Amino acid sequence: MSATDVASAVNADVGKDTSSKLSIVMFSGTADKFIPLGVFTQAAAAMGMEVNVFVTGFALHGFTKEPHDLPFPTEFAAMAPSLAQGMEATNVATWDTMLRQAKELGAKVYACSMMSGVMGLKREDFNDLVDDVVGAATFLQVAEHGETLFI
Amino acid sequence: MSATDVASAVNADVGKDTSSKLSIVMFSGTADKFIPLGVFTQAAAAMGMEVNVFVTGFALHGFTKEPHDLPFPTEFAAMAPSLAQGMEATNVATWDTMLRQAKELGAKVYACSMMSGVMGLKREDFNDLVDDVVGAATFLQVAEHGETLFI
Amino acid sequence: MSATDVASAVNADVGKDTSSKLSIVMFSGTADKFIPLGVFTQAAAAMGMEVNVFVTGFALHGFTKEPHDLPFPTEFAAMAPSLAQGMEATNVATWDTMLRQAKELGAKVYACSMMSGVMGLKREDFNDLVDDVVGAATFLQVAEHGETLFI
Repeated sequence: MSATDVASAVNADVGKDTSSKLSIVMFSGTADKFIPLGVFTQAAAAMGMEVNVFVTGFALHGFTKEPHDLPFPTEFAAMAPSLAQGMEATNVATWDTMLRQAKELGAKVYACSMMSGVMGLKREDFNDLVDDVVGAATFLQVAEHGETLFI
Repeated sequence: MSATDVASAVNADVGKDTSSKLSIVMFSGTADKFIPLGVFTQAAAAMGMEVNVFVTGFALHGFTKEPHDLPFPTEFAAMAPSLAQGMEATNVATWDTMLRQAKELGAKVYACSMMSGVMGLKREDFNDLVDDVVGAATFLQVAEHGETLFI
Repeated sequence: MSATDVASAVNADVGKDTSSKLSIVMFSGTADKFIPLGVFTQAAAAMGMEVNVFVTGFALHGFTKEPHDLPFPTEFAAMAPSLAQGMEATNVATWDTMLRQAKELGAKVYACSMMSGVMGLKREDFNDLVDDVVGAATFLQVAEHGETLFI
């Protein structure tokens, strides 16, 4: 299903809304938390919402050209295999596929300049999911008067 | 103290507000995170706010008929016994008692259809805390123009 | 750089905004999560936003006179030394320095009365970062009609 198909399907279901905005601060770097990032950005973009993501902390490792292993949360390590199986069995797209669909519909992804510096990551170390490297103040302004999730 | 008593007490304290809305995406499945779920849903409902909860990820295990063990976060495992003692000593209600009080005052709880599928959970596997099984797009529309916490 | 310098620098960059509000529920008690607390409170206060923090759960340990060790998340323990080095190399202020700058610009910090009770913490056990000890209902009213992050 293409991003446009998803948009059509969702819009038919819940109606188009162009007046609202979803912003996500993506901080957590464990693999499980990337699923809601994909799901909410894709669903919100398909609904016609403005979508902005600010990637910071350990989550930056999900957006580098050189791949990093995203660890599974210790408390739920035993569930990792059955979750992976369940996602395959129900044809759930990977988080980056969902985020790419959101981006085709206009979602923007910003890497945090401060934490990039702290972690020794330069602009050219990020992959094409990242639109720009900005500071927290710029993101707060972009996110203003919308809903913001801290994941 | 009944839910109505709580509502009266809180309203006397901070005043009734019927115009605003609190939504919670309940994703984390560790036991500690269920406390703020109970506290914020109950307080918001008692204040007259519209309250909507979207349960997804490992948190779905807190809402099944067949009980699941909710693990304590690894980093704070040593504090689990003293926290349990403190909650008993100060007569803090359990999270599900608080959420039930919120529901008596109108709060709604939705299980995420996608993650239910991934985890092999059907509508009939959830207990009576769950009002419906819906998709992320439906929840985003319900949550729109309110405050949304990602727990 | 003083708080006023930061404010000037940020305002020159993104413009002053006095009409909006950022609230943070600070629940997580791992050391890494205190960085975004510092960064977002400081950036938002410097932008002229109203800033309110509600400290609860394990995060209360970051605000006591008697210092508590804030654990590093298990999954990223191996990264702790390089992160600390990176913060020093890039001259990033500690989270409490950033929060103090936010407070000089008007940010308020409230400790959760219920969880303080559960954890056996009294008003006088908190350090000067804490402005008051209040309930969740009071905080919800303070946070209303703004953006709220749950960290």
